[in-house]
Amino acid sequence: MSTALPPAVIALQDELSKMPGVGRKGALRMAMHLLKSDREEVVHLAKAVMDVKDKVKICSICGFISDRDPCPICTDAKRQDGIVCVVEQPGDVIALEKGGIFRGRYHVLGGALSPLDNVGPDELRIRELIDRIEPEGIKEIIVATNPTPEGEQTGFYLSKLMRPRGVNVSRIARGIPVGADLENADDLTLTRALEGRVKFED
Amino acid sequence: MSTALPPAVIALQDELSKMPGVGRKGALRMAMHLLKSDREEVVHLAKAVMDVKDKVKICSICGFISDRDPCPICTDAKRQDGIVCVVEQPGDVIALEKGGIFRGRYHVLGGALSPLDNVGPDELRIRELIDRIEPEGIKEIIVATNPTPEGEQTGFYLSKLMRPRGVNVSRIARGIPVGADLENADDLTLTRALEGRVKFED
Repeated sequence: MSTALPPAVIALQDELSKMPGVGRKGALRMAMHLLKSDREEVVHLAKAVMDVKDKVKICSICGFISDRDPCPICTDAKRQDGIVCVVEQPGDVIALEKGGIFRGRYHVLGGALSPLDNVGPDELRIRELIDRIEPEGIKEIIVATNPTPEGEQTGFYLSKLMRPRGVNVSRIARGIPVGADLENADDLTLTRALEGRVKFED
Repeated sequence: MSTALPPAVIALQDELSKMPGVGRKGALRMAMHLLKSDREEVVHLAKAVMDVKDKVKICSICGFISDRDPCPICTDAKRQDGIVCVVEQPGDVIALEKGGIFRGRYHVLGGALSPLDNVGPDELRIRELIDRIEPEGIKEIIVATNPTPEGEQTGFYLSKLMRPRGVNVSRIARGIPVGADLENADDLTLTRALEGRVKFED
């Protein structure tokens, strides 16, 4: 008889290790943690997992997440039309909103171009951005992707894509430390970065 | 209006960051991953989380995990009585069983003594080990905790605890590289470590 971990533990390990940043060893540690937790705790987690899928909507216009579709930012009549700030993740919208300086609309790409990870334009919400230009009369796009090679490359790609469509594309200034995540930047740094945005040049 | 992440995302982030080795940022990345996954995938994860709690039993004798209580090792009549190998985690039992050299019983402590992390004797399954001595006629205990300061300390503690009870306590040899996890050791190293076990001396 070969002794092995119970199938339910292996199954949970399999599911958990599909998550970004979770290896098989970490997944097993999590499974053991749940096994030792009160059943109530485990129910909470299982419910939270389903709730995030069932209660949270991805905005069909901008890709931000909230409890409705379209999201409160896209339906806010007080915000400026024609100018869109493009970010990688929903958390980036929240970071920029905390600063409060930008009053236009947003577009969440869902990541950055990364050929090595098989993330091309079709994996990001770029088609959706193009489709917004005419109906919304978009004249300016501010690229606020992370200051990583992938983020910069994404900005450059958008710039080339938008020029023939008559849209100005700038990127937020490098006030943000290179290599860091946009989400962790402080309000002042984000403000300076928005003010000092630079037009893409060939 | 302050823009924030939806409550369901925050709730999932809270639950996930209770897990060992998961920070708030990692938890948010997992939440976003689930949000973008197919609903079926998310159902699989939620089900796997509940299954591990509902289908897996912690053996009330030895603390090993399997689909029944008592576990198949404790109920196996062909195994040797009176000799118990004490380990930290269920995964360690599987690692030792793969080697196949040890044919006695096991006892899973659920961790190692670590005063800094508030893990004292009462947090481990030490009382349960003491309670096994008389009914099972335990004469020998092989300590196979990890070769970390906590693991060594736990072995020393068990040795002092068992001596007045007439139980021989040894620890597996340092064939295992110091600082590494028992679970990752290869079969031969585990075999050598079992063969070269050393009696605790004052």
